[in-house]
Amino acid sequence: MLEPGPTGACAPLDRKAALAALAARFGGRLSTAAAVRDQHGHDESWHPSAPPDAVLFARTTDEVSAAVAICAAHRLPVIAFGTGTALEGGVCAETGGLSIDLSGLDRIVRVSTADLDCTVEAGVTRSRLNSHLRDTGLFFPIDPGADASIGGMAATRASGTNAVRYGTMRDTVLGLTVVLADGRVIRTGGRARKSAAGYDLTRLFVGSEGTLGLITEITLRLAGVPEAIVAAVCPFAGIRGAVETVIETIQAGVPVARIELLDEVQIDAVNRYSRTDHRVAPTLFLEFHGSPAAVAEQAEAVAAVAEAHGGGPFAWARAAEERARLWRARHEAYWAAIALRPGAKGWPTDVCVPISRLADCILETKADLAASSVIAPMVGHVGDGNFHLVIVIDPARPDELAEAQRLSDRLVRRALAMGGTSSGEHGIGTGKVAYLEAEHGDAVAVMASIKRALDPLGLLNPGKVLRAGAIAPGVRVAPPPAADR
Amino acid sequence: MLEPGPTGACAPLDRKAALAALAARFGGRLSTAAAVRDQHGHDESWHPSAPPDAVLFARTTDEVSAAVAICAAHRLPVIAFGTGTALEGGVCAETGGLSIDLSGLDRIVRVSTADLDCTVEAGVTRSRLNSHLRDTGLFFPIDPGADASIGGMAATRASGTNAVRYGTMRDTVLGLTVVLADGRVIRTGGRARKSAAGYDLTRLFVGSEGTLGLITEITLRLAGVPEAIVAAVCPFAGIRGAVETVIETIQAGVPVARIELLDEVQIDAVNRYSRTDHRVAPTLFLEFHGSPAAVAEQAEAVAAVAEAHGGGPFAWARAAEERARLWRARHEAYWAAIALRPGAKGWPTDVCVPISRLADCILETKADLAASSVIAPMVGHVGDGNFHLVIVIDPARPDELAEAQRLSDRLVRRALAMGGTSSGEHGIGTGKVAYLEAEHGDAVAVMASIKRALDPLGLLNPGKVLRAGAIAPGVRVAPPPAADR
Repeated sequence: MLEPGPTGACAPLDRKAALAALAARFGGRLSTAAAVRDQHGHDESWHPSAPPDAVLFARTTDEVSAAVAICAAHRLPVIAFGTGTALEGGVCAETGGLSIDLSGLDRIVRVSTADLDCTVEAGVTRSRLNSHLRDTGLFFPIDPGADASIGGMAATRASGTNAVRYGTMRDTVLGLTVVLADGRVIRTGGRARKSAAGYDLTRLFVGSEGTLGLITEITLRLAGVPEAIVAAVCPFAGIRGAVETVIETIQAGVPVARIELLDEVQIDAVNRYSRTDHRVAPTLFLEFHGSPAAVAEQAEAVAAVAEAHGGGPFAWARAAEERARLWRARHEAYWAAIALRPGAKGWPTDVCVPISRLADCILETKADLAASSVIAPMVGHVGDGNFHLVIVIDPARPDELAEAQRLSDRLVRRALAMGGTSSGEHGIGTGKVAYLEAEHGDAVAVMASIKRALDPLGLLNPGKVLRAGAIAPGVRVAPPPAADR
Repeated sequence: MLEPGPTGACAPLDRKAALAALAARFGGRLSTAAAVRDQHGHDESWHPSAPPDAVLFARTTDEVSAAVAICAAHRLPVIAFGTGTALEGGVCAETGGLSIDLSGLDRIVRVSTADLDCTVEAGVTRSRLNSHLRDTGLFFPIDPGADASIGGMAATRASGTNAVRYGTMRDTVLGLTVVLADGRVIRTGGRARKSAAGYDLTRLFVGSEGTLGLITEITLRLAGVPEAIVAAVCPFAGIRGAVETVIETIQAGVPVARIELLDEVQIDAVNRYSRTDHRVAPTLFLEFHGSPAAVAEQAEAVAAVAEAHGGGPFAWARAAEERARLWRARHEAYWAAIALRPGAKGWPTDVCVPISRLADCILETKADLAASSVIAPMVGHVGDGNFHLVIVIDPARPDELAEAQRLSDRLVRRALAMGGTSSGEHGIGTGKVAYLEAEHGDAVAVMASIKRALDPLGLLNPGKVLRAGAIAPGVRVAPPPAADR
């Protein structure tokens, strides 16, 4: 797909020429300042900074296209950067290259209240979109906690607290504008609510973490603001009761909008950080959306299940400010965890299992933690079977890094053995690359062949999602013996 | 990806050797009988039969794998066949080849009531799955009308009457077993409700119409049978009022389970074919799912909107048999349409537009029909903005074929101009190949590069979805001028 660049088809990487060409085209919006490069070389997790050679503050899809074409000609890697709020090292420039900061692509292109959809540029953050929507009766429901950019959320297939009811970015993105590895620009999907016309490129780019193309514009389905919203907090005598409440709620088909678990360690951290006074116990944070009657019906159903499992009393939050306070504390959980130990960083993990295995997975993980030397609050979007640990470590201490790696590894392998996934929502980045084959087997070879087809020079976010070794042409995973199929 | 077969890397197609090798491996389950080949060369639409060279009645994924490997070695095309109930010529063997009939892959592998999911082989039909689920409290909600196979439904990204509430096959498939072009077997996705681990191969194969791989096993999300179900029929004074009722219902966020439009021509056909006595008028068929209170609330909301738009009275169907009778008549709409004219065939069209454009799209199409010499009942899953014509023609008459082509072409181009899609649910097959570039522009080149990567010899369902010319290596669509991006 890629045509030979000005330096010839087999040109080696020429960083100097690439940077000169980029500087000539973009002037002062190309930065090689150490502080800017460092800021674009890491996310909010423990992953060490790997700064790019330069950062481009782009403003339009055309600029991204031009920059990628220059990089392709000189074989310089390209990494898309949104808000830097991810957790698996996806923006680290492991082999240098150009980081394209998309925060300047910040236009809300259009909102259609009649069609419940909108189109935004990649740098628009979810809170800015929701502020913009305030008087329309619509909202953008995907809420990963961080005020991430919509482009970054699409690239990592983000989800979060509302996904149990409203789905993930997989379900919410209707179409994309994507800059390909050679600078070409395509549009995928469309504005119809469904389509059977051709391959689903939209879903292929959603979750591809900048390794197949750079997402510059996103068309999204929006949801109507519900007539009634009620939030609640419910502590439990033990974590098993909290998890069983979640499982029965989901199995009964109660359309909860949010059902979040915080273990007692996380609640203690939240109380300290957000100055709340929740009872220090495994706790569910819930929210119900619908007509007043529907909300009452749902809340009653869940309260009955919780009571049977040692939960209660419910503390209700009805007014908008009360609900905002409740969810602010939930959203600060990551920072609250890290603040348990001054100077520490977070090693976040993220797995998702079939709901029937959630209690087993959580209880076995709690047993691991009880026997460990490190502290690791647990928090999760448990209605989806998805939960996280934030392992609080000093990354300068090899013993703590090793212990975090051991705990995370056990958790991921446990989830996979239970029919789950190595990442419910954080993505693969560099942190989970090692597990992709354990999860997907021979299907990884198909992912690699798609990577080679769309990025033959391997310039888009190298080292993320797929190991370099997995992408090399000619690599072929042998078919499994017939008995294992 | 494909290794050289026994006949060498550049071997030409050798039909005779391929059929001999297949017969040696599969004996009597390989048929070259004319009647069997003819039956596997067409679907339920007007598309003329293009019989394969042979039909294999496969029983397992391993058999499909072995058959595909033999075909690859001898360069024989392979076409997956489910129930033959599709409408865009997707199973026609335009260049001959082996049709693999998957109806013998008929095991329901497992059902998990705890996780609301199941795994079935590709040949299981939707009605068989729902019979099997009868006592579990769960059901499989995707309902395209025909009793299609789940494999065929996944391959064509099917949807139907319940999609407005429960989504399409895109949303419902959790994972797949796929036989690749060289016979390798992969598994995609998994049983977790969400995942951010790697490229979304599941969504890539869903809707790829057998051109990237053969789907042999499907893991599906199921839905809980609602506590209360009420169906209704509501005639309108004019079609605009019916469509405006749909638009307002969707915009208000009423979670209708089904909201189907039949125009007066279709109602007349249904009355004749299914011996019903609906008033001959544009009519909505509806269904409401939920708690008794929720169902009452929804029904009341829609009835109020309908009344304001000249609709009513509502005829309600509450008992299971009454509802079944009502929907049977709806499901027979295609056959009812064709029966309007003895010996005729149906040229079905299928578009989907943003809901705000639905009234314009339907009214302009009705004006086209009023001026045409052919009859074409209109029916649609209008809650999604999706509707069909069944143009009733004698395919032996070139003037009627030409008129159907003209009407269908105008409809597709109208939908595209309104931001819609050339197919909401029937797929591309051969019937819509001409529109793919009009809809997706340069993105078709990316689809073609994926096709080449996964099926380098071009053996999987040739001529479907993508034109042969679009797939040829080296074909590159020029980037659009900057102003058009």
